[in-house]
Amino acid sequence: MSQNSARFIVIEGLEGAGKSSAVSLVRDFIEKYTGHAPLCTREPGGTPLAEKIRTLVKTTEPGDPLCDEAECLLIYAARAQLVANVIKPALARGQWVLGDRHNLSSLAYQGGGRGLMSLVETVSRATLGDFKPDLTLYLDIEPALGLRRAARRGELDRIEQQELAFFERARATYLAKAQEDDSIVVIDAGQDMAEVHKDILAMLQQRL
Amino acid sequence: MSQNSARFIVIEGLEGAGKSSAVSLVRDFIEKYTGHAPLCTREPGGTPLAEKIRTLVKTTEPGDPLCDEAECLLIYAARAQLVANVIKPALARGQWVLGDRHNLSSLAYQGGGRGLMSLVETVSRATLGDFKPDLTLYLDIEPALGLRRAARRGELDRIEQQELAFFERARATYLAKAQEDDSIVVIDAGQDMAEVHKDILAMLQQRL
Repeated sequence: MSQNSARFIVIEGLEGAGKSSAVSLVRDFIEKYTGHAPLCTREPGGTPLAEKIRTLVKTTEPGDPLCDEAECLLIYAARAQLVANVIKPALARGQWVLGDRHNLSSLAYQGGGRGLMSLVETVSRATLGDFKPDLTLYLDIEPALGLRRAARRGELDRIEQQELAFFERARATYLAKAQEDDSIVVIDAGQDMAEVHKDILAMLQQRL
Repeated sequence: MSQNSARFIVIEGLEGAGKSSAVSLVRDFIEKYTGHAPLCTREPGGTPLAEKIRTLVKTTEPGDPLCDEAECLLIYAARAQLVANVIKPALARGQWVLGDRHNLSSLAYQGGGRGLMSLVETVSRATLGDFKPDLTLYLDIEPALGLRRAARRGELDRIEQQELAFFERARATYLAKAQEDDSIVVIDAGQDMAEVHKDILAMLQQRL
């Protein structure tokens, strides 16, 4: 691959949609396809500072509940660090980047879920400008099914403990954004994992 | 004092302008004036989570320099927490609040100093809405003089290590905002401390 063809691919989806195994699958695909392992990121996080911000977002400070606006701003602070110090430098040196969540998660969770779409869209534009993934694979799942799967993994974190309606709003936003943006592909993640993976690979073959 | 007359007073100024001794003076004044000690805050910080954010802003992560946009968003995340969980509840129960820095610092430092005024104004509106101090005392000082005073206190932190032009831009923004907004009062902090304190007390007598 020539240097300037490096791509930024993102896996998105609700809790329990199967993002982790999809990340593994896509990482292996990219490695075979390009001959080099992609740089893998997770959000919020992915730089030393951004990981500290992730901890602030994921835990609850006694007597100091995280307000929705602060949650949104913390997540974008982490993303600004990750894009400036990790993702853009990798793409510039020709390395592919594979993201476990990116900006679409904020549109879905903070924008749709929390009802802060105006703040999210404004901060998104101000911090990212035109920068966005070349391809986003959105693993679509019924929130109730996803949460049952996620609960089996163990204790749910602060965001995973939201009520079902929150995730329904997040899902509706994911689907609406996919309708508007051709670089976002919806994968039916309610199927058996083998089928999901077949669909992901078919989509990668078609799009790359 | 009746409960709903509680005020939010803020001390602002560049490094070395004499904010700390002004905060002491105003705290004592408020205590005598109202019969109760005000709640004192400092920014960024003032809640358990906001103090953790303050640490992230004040220190440098090796290999992960804090980008300007992330700095701005972190400071507003801390402010959102402080306003929601500390300042508004205090004012609602009738307690005066005395702030060592507030939103005007972001307009001056991140807006004027870093050149991010559009991001700052947008995030400010989105997180604070119409909420603002009843009175801001801006201690105006020549940046070169202030920095010499601050340097005498000991090691300068990440923000205090900016070049002089950064502080010149911040000062110009402080002065411009004071021109536009009648609730911001400029105090000449280049005078002897006794004169500065006399001016502060005169202004408090006049405005409260």
